Amino acid sequence: MSETWKQPLSYLGVAALSAGAAVAGYRYLTGYRYTTVVPPPAAAAAVVPAVVDESTNADEIELAFKAVQNHICQFLEDESGQRYKEDTWSYDKGSGGGISRVWEALSDDERHLLLEKGGVNFSGIHGAAMPDSAATQFKIPPNTAFRATGVSLVIHPRTPHVPTIHANIRYFECGPRWWFGGGVDVTPYYVNRERVVEFHKLLRALCEEWGYSYEAFKKQCDAYFLNTHRKEARGVGGLFFDHLTTSDALPKSKKEICDFLVALGMLFPQLYGPFIHEGKDKEVTPEQREFQLYRRSRYVEFNLLHDRGTKFGLQSEGRVESILMSMPPLARWKYNWHPEEGTPEAELYDIITPKDWASM
Amino acid sequence: MSETWKQPLSYLGVAALSAGAAVAGYRYLTGYRYTTVVPPPAAAAAVVPAVVDESTNADEIELAFKAVQNHICQFLEDESGQRYKEDTWSYDKGSGGGISRVWEALSDDERHLLLEKGGVNFSGIHGAAMPDSAATQFKIPPNTAFRATGVSLVIHPRTPHVPTIHANIRYFECGPRWWFGGGVDVTPYYVNRERVVEFHKLLRALCEEWGYSYEAFKKQCDAYFLNTHRKEARGVGGLFFDHLTTSDALPKSKKEICDFLVALGMLFPQLYGPFIHEGKDKEVTPEQREFQLYRRSRYVEFNLLHDRGTKFGLQSEGRVESILMSMPPLARWKYNWHPEEGTPEAELYDIITPKDWASM
Repeated sequence: MSETWKQPLSYLGVAALSAGAAVAGYRYLTGYRYTTVVPPPAAAAAVVPAVVDESTNADEIELAFKAVQNHICQFLEDESGQRYKEDTWSYDKGSGGGISRVWEALSDDERHLLLEKGGVNFSGIHGAAMPDSAATQFKIPPNTAFRATGVSLVIHPRTPHVPTIHANIRYFECGPRWWFGGGVDVTPYYVNRERVVEFHKLLRALCEEWGYSYEAFKKQCDAYFLNTHRKEARGVGGLFFDHLTTSDALPKSKKEICDFLVALGMLFPQLYGPFIHEGKDKEVTPEQREFQLYRRSRYVEFNLLHDRGTKFGLQSEGRVESILMSMPPLARWKYNWHPEEGTPEAELYDIITPKDWASM
Repeated sequence: MSETWKQPLSYLGVAALSAGAAVAGYRYLTGYRYTTVVPPPAAAAAVVPAVVDESTNADEIELAFKAVQNHICQFLEDESGQRYKEDTWSYDKGSGGGISRVWEALSDDERHLLLEKGGVNFSGIHGAAMPDSAATQFKIPPNTAFRATGVSLVIHPRTPHVPTIHANIRYFECGPRWWFGGGVDVTPYYVNRERVVEFHKLLRALCEEWGYSYEAFKKQCDAYFLNTHRKEARGVGGLFFDHLTTSDALPKSKKEICDFLVALGMLFPQLYGPFIHEGKDKEVTPEQREFQLYRRSRYVEFNLLHDRGTKFGLQSEGRVESILMSMPPLARWKYNWHPEEGTPEAELYDIITPKDWASM
């Protein structure tokens, strides 16, 4: 586990899979680019299912998304040494359901553990009729059958030296219409700018590899993860995209788009690992912990005031505990508090001002 | 300060004012009904302004509301021994502004203090044109001049043995239209049912005194302070009313309605004092503190997901720090946590199920 293991950025898109026949359908990102790091979890790599032709159906997408969930959970277990707890649930307004996997280390005895609270959720549901609020939002007749599947994660580390991260990939179909969405973004408390640059470079490389515009997805991310009431970004951004489907302008097949999302999901260890490795053993002062709790209040505000996923989930009467799994373990509100100029806390407000990180 | 001082419920409506001419216009609730308690703050009582006729204008209402703010702040200072900090602000889209008064005791050194975080805000603003979102909501042409004034408070005590309390009184006018709104509600963590019964009986007596329906206002409160996404009440309710104005059915003058709101505001020490006195010196276990933090997350969820005042304030670009002053100092989210049956924590869920408290 302590061996040095390195791969250049050019591994992107290289099918570095060690496991057999079932995985051939996916171009697949594997390997970690840490300088000193654990090897990639081979077990997770082995379960990516084949998708043999363009007719990729929702069952196949669900299987691929479950493989992403497994891959990420394996990585987080390896990194943290913490085992997740799993809940499964059924969608009581149709069929299907979900698999929630959650880490919690809330007591003071567990303060040495990496994952204070986090979860990686898979869901795959189908229904005979769209919930009214969703039908209105998507401009679809209310009695259309639908199917939705996705993987969504939020990780709140205990240490303020590792940022909070959110990512999701999702697929939606109703009648003949279908589209994908997803993204990833990082919310630091204290962070090395170099890590942020690397994170954005990786995302740009991924987008270029798959023929998507990093700039467009980054711009959507900056526009979306904004606490408009405070005129303040949630974090340092990343990617955000929605309604990815085939079109005359971009005639990608369903399989190709699904592959891109799966590649993004599979990239998670490379995206988050460097942040963990840099920050996890740094000393934390009580003041730094307090600043983390204070900043987490902004995360709460974004998720409850602005996040469309949260709103849609609650409006359509999804499973509350899975939707609000994104909430931080502990958050602090102070009245009209501002950090002193010149402090690392004040510097955060510069870090979260949108920048062209990938070109730095 | 330690003398025993008692008054029966029948003091309601009795003008027990010791100060002179300027206060004659208000029937005024004073006196505390604690068994052992501090005497009422005479200083606050003295500044209630006269409203001499039916033409009560917004200036007079503002003065009366400021007196309510003073009265409540004096009470909270006396009870807690903590001095508030005051911020004043100007309404930059029109004229007027506000006076925010805030208490915070966030450090561990201050854990003996009663008020962990709380504020009592006065605001009085006028503008040449309604903000669009407000105009739409109130079905008013967007270029109508408006005026709004109110007092709003939220108190988060440090001890879970004293409930969180929220109250507000507000007045709004635009062109020839005007109306009042307001209410008070209590959110316990651990609480004696007797105190809740007394609280509701006081509110019923107040409503009866002023010719309003306690039942109707209580019902609106139960309907409003509901975390619909969890199908769970925020607390034990109280009163909630809006659009109080003169009508053929209830031809009250503007002055009469204003008097009712001021009476409600002035009743605050009697409404909250018994909760403080019962709970403030009780021992707090770490588990009780944790349960308080956990339950406070529901307060956050209500205020950010459902509260119309918060939404309206943020949409109309009000002062964020004053609007979100209602947020608790520290809140805890746990994944899918539920208290064990038969515990005081489980009992809370029975206490917050709406009941006809005033008839118990």
